[in-house]
Amino acid sequence: MVEILAASRVDEWRRLDPSRTVLMDLDRGQVVFELAPTFAPELLRNLRTLVREGWFDGLSINRVQDNYVAQWGDATEKKALPEGLATVGPKNYITPNWPGKVWSFAGADGGRDAYAAAHGFYVGWPLAASSEGLWPIHCYGMVGVGRNLSPDTGSGDELYTVIGHAPRHLDRNIALVGRVIEGIEHMSSLPRGTGALGFYEKEEERVPILSVRLGNETKDVPAFEYLSTDSDSFAAYADARANRRDPFFNVPAGGADICNIPVPVRRKIR
Amino acid sequence: MVEILAASRVDEWRRLDPSRTVLMDLDRGQVVFELAPTFAPELLRNLRTLVREGWFDGLSINRVQDNYVAQWGDATEKKALPEGLATVGPKNYITPNWPGKVWSFAGADGGRDAYAAAHGFYVGWPLAASSEGLWPIHCYGMVGVGRNLSPDTGSGDELYTVIGHAPRHLDRNIALVGRVIEGIEHMSSLPRGTGALGFYEKEEERVPILSVRLGNETKDVPAFEYLSTDSDSFAAYADARANRRDPFFNVPAGGADICNIPVPVRRKIR
Repeated sequence: MVEILAASRVDEWRRLDPSRTVLMDLDRGQVVFELAPTFAPELLRNLRTLVREGWFDGLSINRVQDNYVAQWGDATEKKALPEGLATVGPKNYITPNWPGKVWSFAGADGGRDAYAAAHGFYVGWPLAASSEGLWPIHCYGMVGVGRNLSPDTGSGDELYTVIGHAPRHLDRNIALVGRVIEGIEHMSSLPRGTGALGFYEKEEERVPILSVRLGNETKDVPAFEYLSTDSDSFAAYADARANRRDPFFNVPAGGADICNIPVPVRRKIR
Repeated sequence: MVEILAASRVDEWRRLDPSRTVLMDLDRGQVVFELAPTFAPELLRNLRTLVREGWFDGLSINRVQDNYVAQWGDATEKKALPEGLATVGPKNYITPNWPGKVWSFAGADGGRDAYAAAHGFYVGWPLAASSEGLWPIHCYGMVGVGRNLSPDTGSGDELYTVIGHAPRHLDRNIALVGRVIEGIEHMSSLPRGTGALGFYEKEEERVPILSVRLGNETKDVPAFEYLSTDSDSFAAYADARANRRDPFFNVPAGGADICNIPVPVRRKIR
């Protein structure tokens, strides 16, 4: 896999849009995540508003549940939201009218997926599909929007990321809006909360968020790029994930589930 | 799921064998793991010997790779092994002659698995199968035996546990010998190593192992029990994992991959 990525062509990589790149600073380091382009347009607008207004600054990571999620937002649930946030409906869980582009998947898992009849990658994101539409998949590092019971869908003020085995029962039940592309270890290695659902029981356990900024509104942000999931190198990479050929392996698996094929993202190297 | 477990009958739970229960003490807490009964008999014997001789005492966790494994053993690779360890062959990766018991699986994933044609649970363990035999699956918390390049298969002196999305490409390539049943958060929340493969680069980063003991050779060990994977309650539980019906969920997934159906283990409550 290292060789495939090293041999990939420059034109197979796509630059991440800095206006969808989010930088979250913690005492222990920086977490960078990318907002998804089109799955939940109202939430994308809300998140840009929340970040631009500095709403997350001074809030905290309040929940770390082992093999599940790390979650951040306003622990007091009293901080006033900025004006102009959209009300969001459950339509954000499934995108019925997809752009129509044929998506790519190397078929590395032979189509055998416990959760959906169809699945694959489109513009760099892992997706599943049915006759109703398409939706992103809760793989490791994906970022979603916390909510209360339906019909509440959340506004984007409470976010979580997956830090364990893919909890795909959440697919179509919560809006996914992005993924961590760098620094997830600053969240996945946090102490687990001892309260119900992994919430921290004491105020002093919460992990302060120093600041959250958009990439296009911050100086000196590194450029990131992902390997186009339409590229020949991605197809070779997915096949290599499913059939390891390096000397350590005796038996190639013959398949890989979609969350075991993380889309390569790197700091731009040219 | 909570209701199903609460309503399960006492006779649906099986007590864990204390002679296969291992207690590992770290400064930050105790990790308890269960050795598997039959997959790798030589390794099971080796592990009992290593633990009984106190071989792990004073060693350390040396590798923590995000979304992958935590690994412990002798960082110096110089400590002499106890005498009498078996030489282990690759036959330990697949068990050709299975006891013949029909295994149970609720079919919660519709048989759709990217890695194996057949899979399910047997005496509480997640397994996959082909015409060659059966093998345990690298789910979250499973414990395996580190090795060098083939034909080396390791002797049990170097162990790892899965702390991320199931790395099932390791199935049939490394011997799995157990699973963590309590305290995995003491390993999964460790700082990630910054060296290649997540190894700690500095000696002082390593996490000391205070002691490792067998349950049947230690006083005051709590009794543990697992929900029989042949039981009605397990079938109901697996179905509920695949089709969440609590008020939070709008859409049941309609399936669950085998690693999203962790076998319930608890401290014995009667």
